Amino acid sequence: MDDRPIGVFDSGLGGLTAVAEIRKILPFENIIYFGDTSRVPYGGRSPEILLKYARQDVGFLRSFDIKAVVVACGTVSTTALPQLKAESDLPILGVVEPACRRAVKMTKSKKVGLIATAASVRSGQYERTIAAIDPTVEVIGAACPLFVPLVENGRYRVGDAVVEQIAEEYLAPLREAGVDTLIMGCTHYPLLTEVVGKIMGEGVELINAGAEAAWELKRTLTATDALANEREGAYKLYASDITGDFAALAGQFLNDTVPAVEGVDIDQY
Amino acid sequence: MDDRPIGVFDSGLGGLTAVAEIRKILPFENIIYFGDTSRVPYGGRSPEILLKYARQDVGFLRSFDIKAVVVACGTVSTTALPQLKAESDLPILGVVEPACRRAVKMTKSKKVGLIATAASVRSGQYERTIAAIDPTVEVIGAACPLFVPLVENGRYRVGDAVVEQIAEEYLAPLREAGVDTLIMGCTHYPLLTEVVGKIMGEGVELINAGAEAAWELKRTLTATDALANEREGAYKLYASDITGDFAALAGQFLNDTVPAVEGVDIDQY
Repeated sequence: MDDRPIGVFDSGLGGLTAVAEIRKILPFENIIYFGDTSRVPYGGRSPEILLKYARQDVGFLRSFDIKAVVVACGTVSTTALPQLKAESDLPILGVVEPACRRAVKMTKSKKVGLIATAASVRSGQYERTIAAIDPTVEVIGAACPLFVPLVENGRYRVGDAVVEQIAEEYLAPLREAGVDTLIMGCTHYPLLTEVVGKIMGEGVELINAGAEAAWELKRTLTATDALANEREGAYKLYASDITGDFAALAGQFLNDTVPAVEGVDIDQY
Repeated sequence: MDDRPIGVFDSGLGGLTAVAEIRKILPFENIIYFGDTSRVPYGGRSPEILLKYARQDVGFLRSFDIKAVVVACGTVSTTALPQLKAESDLPILGVVEPACRRAVKMTKSKKVGLIATAASVRSGQYERTIAAIDPTVEVIGAACPLFVPLVENGRYRVGDAVVEQIAEEYLAPLREAGVDTLIMGCTHYPLLTEVVGKIMGEGVELINAGAEAAWELKRTLTATDALANEREGAYKLYASDITGDFAALAGQFLNDTVPAVEGVDIDQY
C-alpha cells in the first residue's frame, strides 16, 4: 500500500474531468491537481514550448512526495510524454495509449475517429499508437480548435446553436467516413459528450480519454502494490492563475463543489 | 528627429493590426514588435498575471534602444498601463485613452458601445476614461470572449454562419441600447469590421483602437520632436512561440507578407 498522493496536471481546468474519473474509480487515493491557468490553452503551441511547460508542471507536482503523475492533458500526452517519462523515476501516465487501446478493442468497422486540439492531431501520436496495436485500424482525425474556448465559456450544452453548428462542422467528415468509435482526445471534451453523441448518432462509441487513463492508473497501482489504504481520499487544487470565475468553471469540470485553490508561480519550477 | 525604433507588443498577433496602422500613419518609423504567442490569450487572465506578463513584454522591448512603447493590447491597456507608465522613463501609450477621446468626439446619441475581452470589460477602464472626458456619455460594454479564438482560427468573414451568430449575440444588446459609436477595444477586432458593421448598421461609427493609438503616437512624437527621418521605416517581428501557422496568421493581421520572425524566451525578461 502507498498513501502518497497522485499528481495530476493539465493546461487549465479540463483535466478536472480526469480527476472526477479517478475519484470514481479510485476513491481512496489522494490527489494533487495543478492547472496551468496562467498559460492555458496549450492546444495551439509548439512542441518546444509544450515540453518546457510540461517539465515545469511535473516539477511543481514533484515538489510534493507523490507516487505517480497523470498527464491529464491530451496535448502534452501527444507531444512531450516520452521525454517526461525518460526524465522521471515515477510512473507517468498519459491519456493517449489507454484511449487507443480501448478504441481498438471497441471498433468493429476498423475505423476510429479522433477529435483533439490542433497540436494533438498534428503530432500523429494517436495514429502511431493505434498502428502499433492493430495496423488494420484506420484513424480519421479532426482538429477542433474552438471546442476548448467554447467549453471554457460555458458553451457545451445541447440546444446551444453555436456549439451544435461548430460540432457538426468538425464531426461531419468523421460521421461520413463511417467511424464507429470516437476518441475524445482532450480532457475538456467530456462536457461535450451530449452534443457529440447527438451528432455522431447512437451507434458510435465515445471514448473518454481521461476515464481510460484513470483505469490505466488503477492497473498500474494495483500491479505495483501502490494503492492507497481504504479510507476516503482527499484532493487539493493548485493553479498558476486564479480568476474570479475559477470556482464556477472548475465546478463544471469536476461536477462537484470546488475545494479551496492555491496559487502557484509556475515559472519558479 | 529620432531614428530609434518604436516598441510595440501584444499578447499575440492581434497587435499587428496596430502595426499596420502605425506603418500607414508613420511610414518612416522603425518598429520592433513582440507577440507573446507562448502565453496568448491574455483576455481571461487576472490583473496580477497580466501585470507580470506586461512587465516582461516591456522588458524585452527595452533590451533594444527604443524611443517609445505602444501597448497594442486592449487587455494590458485596461489593467496594467498606470503601473507600466510609473515604472518607465519612456512614453508608453495604450489603446484605451485615444479610443475613448475619439468615441466621445463622434457620438451624438451620447451612447457609446464597447466590445472587448472579459478582462477589459471587467476592468471598467473605458467607463472611467470616458467619464473623465465627458460624464454625460454612457458606455454600454459587452465582453466578447469568443472573438479572439474565432479570429485566430481564421473565422472572421461575413458569410461565416458561426461568426455572424456569435457576433449577433454579443452585439444585439448594444444595438438595442441605441449606441451610435462602437469602440473595438481589442486589436484582434479590426478583422471583424465587416461582420460587426453589418450587424450594427451603417449609422454606427466603429472605432479602431489600434488606429487611434497610432494617431496618438504621431502626436506624441511630433510634440517631442522625436519623429524619424524621412526614409522608409523597417520593422522586425519577435514572438515567444513560433508555430507552423505563424506566417499565415500574422499575414492576416498585417494584411501584408510577413518578414522573418525571431523567437524570444520571454521568461528571461
